[in-house]
Order: sequence, then structure tokens, then C-alpha cells
Amino acid sequence: MRNDSEDGSSTQMNEAVTSRPARRSRNGSQELVDDLIVIEEPVEIRLAGTAIAVLMRTPGHDTDLITGFALTEGIVLSPQEIDRIEYLGEGRYELVLRQDVTVDPEQFRRNLYATSSCGVCGKASIDAVRIAARTAPPGPVIPPSVISNLPGKLETAQPSFDLTGGIHAAAAFTPEGNLVVAREDIGRHNAVDKIVGALTADNWPINHPILFVSGRVSFEIVQKAAVAGFPIVAGVSAVSSLAADLAEELGLTVLGFVRDGGFNVYTGKDRIALAS
Amino acid sequence: MRNDSEDGSSTQMNEAVTSRPARRSRNGSQELVDDLIVIEEPVEIRLAGTAIAVLMRTPGHDTDLITGFALTEGIVLSPQEIDRIEYLGEGRYELVLRQDVTVDPEQFRRNLYATSSCGVCGKASIDAVRIAARTAPPGPVIPPSVISNLPGKLETAQPSFDLTGGIHAAAAFTPEGNLVVAREDIGRHNAVDKIVGALTADNWPINHPILFVSGRVSFEIVQKAAVAGFPIVAGVSAVSSLAADLAEELGLTVLGFVRDGGFNVYTGKDRIALAS
Repeated sequence: MRNDSEDGSSTQMNEAVTSRPARRSRNGSQELVDDLIVIEEPVEIRLAGTAIAVLMRTPGHDTDLITGFALTEGIVLSPQEIDRIEYLGEGRYELVLRQDVTVDPEQFRRNLYATSSCGVCGKASIDAVRIAARTAPPGPVIPPSVISNLPGKLETAQPSFDLTGGIHAAAAFTPEGNLVVAREDIGRHNAVDKIVGALTADNWPINHPILFVSGRVSFEIVQKAAVAGFPIVAGVSAVSSLAADLAEELGLTVLGFVRDGGFNVYTGKDRIALAS
Repeated sequence: MRNDSEDGSSTQMNEAVTSRPARRSRNGSQELVDDLIVIEEPVEIRLAGTAIAVLMRTPGHDTDLITGFALTEGIVLSPQEIDRIEYLGEGRYELVLRQDVTVDPEQFRRNLYATSSCGVCGKASIDAVRIAARTAPPGPVIPPSVISNLPGKLETAQPSFDLTGGIHAAAAFTPEGNLVVAREDIGRHNAVDKIVGALTADNWPINHPILFVSGRVSFEIVQKAAVAGFPIVAGVSAVSSLAADLAEELGLTVLGFVRDGGFNVYTGKDRIALAS
């Protein structure tokens, strides 16, 4: 549900949303309105003083985003390798690693990416596309009713989508289908990285089995899920061929078209029970 | 409309679509089906022997994609600077420039991106996000009925979406709303680059005014449109704050929520007539 402000005010509803004057055409007539739109802004991630990536993201939970990005892109192997994330001003953050962790920023500047709604971006060669990801151990087995109920539960945690109609969401769920944490972002993979970053304080790899995204499941979403430790990745929309291939290779369960009470399971079908 | 194959065959319908066995849950019962899914595969772009970017794309019109990408990312300033695009095998292409054109591949390897559904990817610093784009001259003025009719016209040109339910599309239209060329890709910005590449044989910059995309209008879509010369960018879904900001700065018209017979105009409102 979109919810345009009609009173001409120009307030910012939350840090992810702003208003903008628009001319709206409906049923052949046009009127001026203040429309709520999602904020998209770049952040630059610096490592040892070198800019290594720019993310086009929606503001909010920046530290979680950068933590999750550093993990799912293989810049660090565990949250413990990160000492702190410092805001430098003007959209720039410094990723400060512990002193005993050595990385070559130039390696990441050349092989990494930075991104607005994808996740295989700016890797400079085809061989750099695949981040090392562990193979998922067997289990758990989830009742189909838990999967069918994911969209309804995610909807309750999408305040900025309600306002703007234009922002992705991702959420982690328990085996029983309880929502652990949900995040919104204009980039699907950013929403996933925000989830990952938010959950690293508890455990690494993440010990909740289900990652659910509001849109399509592409290669990079499966890759991020695999690195973070989610054995089950489900999306409201379609699954790409490479996403299914990677999920099969790593033993993950991938589901698409989770909506209207149904779903398709493409890989790792043993994790989805045949009856509730 | 999705159109799953139910006969258990595993044929590839077209180069963008493949079939995959899936277990489908509907109304509480599950059955095995062969589901059609969209193909996502990386291509590597090489310049003077150096890999400069990887695009996660749907196969088809690769030469148009690489031509459009090279133009909208500022690697070349005109199609005439490209001598040819050579396929090297294994998903790798060499972008061969004319001998009198000199570029430093390392500059692009460091500052460019490569991408699956975004377009500001892998740029290594915040300053590299903006590609030089021309300011759009005034005009043309389009009747609102032309805008309202865009979604129906694009739908007729989305064969792979019909099959899979999971692929973006972009199209160029004349001022009268006639479809010039439409392309599909798992990445929105790739679909735009395929359009741009397809149209460069006629004119540069492109001399058709309307770029229409099946999804959201984000910063990189406006940027690509501006470089290619489209004064009007319209999308079925939401417009981001940075997309509207860039459109305003460059004098472009940006429209969102072009669906169900209506639309919102955010910038460059003079190009959309008040009555049909």
C-alpha cells in the first residue's frame, strides 16, 4: 500500500524516506502531491585509508551494512577481525581491522565491487565472482506452512515500503517461522548484508536457518546466504539459473515464488517437509 | 503470466530461459514440475587484454550489451570509438577500440564496476560514481495517454517474462508511443544497456525520447539514460531520491508508478502535457 502525503508538507518520515513534489495522473486527471520516495545515497567504504567500494544504499543501519558486506564479500573471515567502523563524514566509512589481521586493500579495490541492487559488481574478472563459501550441513526440516506464512510476516516489518512502494526487504526467521530481524534497503543485497551485520553480535556463522527476501533470488543473494550460514534462502519472486546452480553445489535450499500461499522448491528439497 | 512446463521435458525455450525440476506447493499439496527459470551468467569484458568488468547478465544480445555498457559507463564517448567486440570463449569478450583511441584499462579496472542488477557497482570511490552526462535540451511534450499506454506495449515484448515470471525489461519509444526496441535481462541496467547498444547503429546520442523500464528507476538508470540521450525516463515502479535529484540536475523528466492507467511525474514536468 502506498500512502502519499497529500497535505503539501515536506517532512522526512524516517531516515529511509523523503518527500518530493510530484504531479500525479490518475483516471485522466492530474494533481500536484507531495509523494514519499525512498532515499538512495552512496556510502564509500575505506580500508587502511584506501577506498575499496561504494555502495548505493538506503540510509539506516550503516554499521550493520558494512559489517555484513565485509563478511559476505570475504574481506574479513569473521566479525572478530573487525575492530570498529568509523564514520569519516560525507558518506565515508573506515573499516578498521584488528592489528593482527593483515589484508591488502588494493586486492579488494581491484576485485571487489560496490553496488545498488546486485552483488557481483565490479569484480574485475570472472574468476573473482565466487567468494569462498562453506557447504551447508543437513537440516533443519521446515513445515511448508512456515514457508507459506513468510510473506505475511515480512509485510508487517516493512514500514518504508508501506510509505513509498519502492524498497526491498530481507529478514531472518527461526525454524518455527518467527521473525528474528528484518531490514529494508533500495538494494536487495544491501538488505541481506544489514541482516547479516545485525546478527553477527549473536553468532557467526548465523544460527537462524531461513533468509527471506522480498524480491528475486539471484546468484549473489545465494552467495551471501551461503557465506553467512543460512541453509535456506526463499524469495517472493523468481530464482535465477545461477542461483539454483550455486545453491545445489553448496547444499542450500532455494525457494522462489513464495507468495499467495504457495512456493516452488528448486534445490535442497529435503529441508522442506511434504506436509505440515 | 507464468507458464510452467508440466510434461517433464527439459528443453531450453530460448537462450534466456532454461527448465529446472522443482517441487511446487499450491493449496497445501506438492507436485514435481519442470519449471522455467531465467538464465543468469557472467560475462567478462576485457580491454587491451585486461579484464575491466564482469556483468551478471542473461544471454542474448551480448554485443549490444557491451556496446551500451561501454557508452553509458564512459569507457568510450561514441560508438565510433569501438572497432569491434570479439568473443574470446568462456564468457569473455574483448572490447577492441579504434587504433587512434587511447584509454588506460587500469583506470577502468579500478573505477568501473560490473553488475547483476545495479549500475553504480565496483566504483572504488564516491567521486567515481557520476559519469559525465550531458544536460537534456527542452522537449518533446508527450500526451499523458502515451505514458499510460507504455506498460501494455512493453508487455507484448516480454517473451521471457511470460515464460519465467522473473526478468526485467526495458524499451525505447517514439514521441507517439510506438515501441522502437525492447530487451529483457535479469539486470535492469543490462536491459537498458542492450537497448542503448541496439540503437547506436542509427544515431548517437539516441534520437528516441522515451526510455521505459519494467521496474524501479534508480540513480544508475537515470545516469545511463542521460548519457545515451533519453530526455524521458519512466518506470513501472518507484523512483529513488537520487534518481530524481540527478534527473532534475540534468533536465530529464522522470516518471514512476506508470501502471494501472496512472503515473507520477517527479521532474521535468513540462515534457508531460496536462491533457491528452
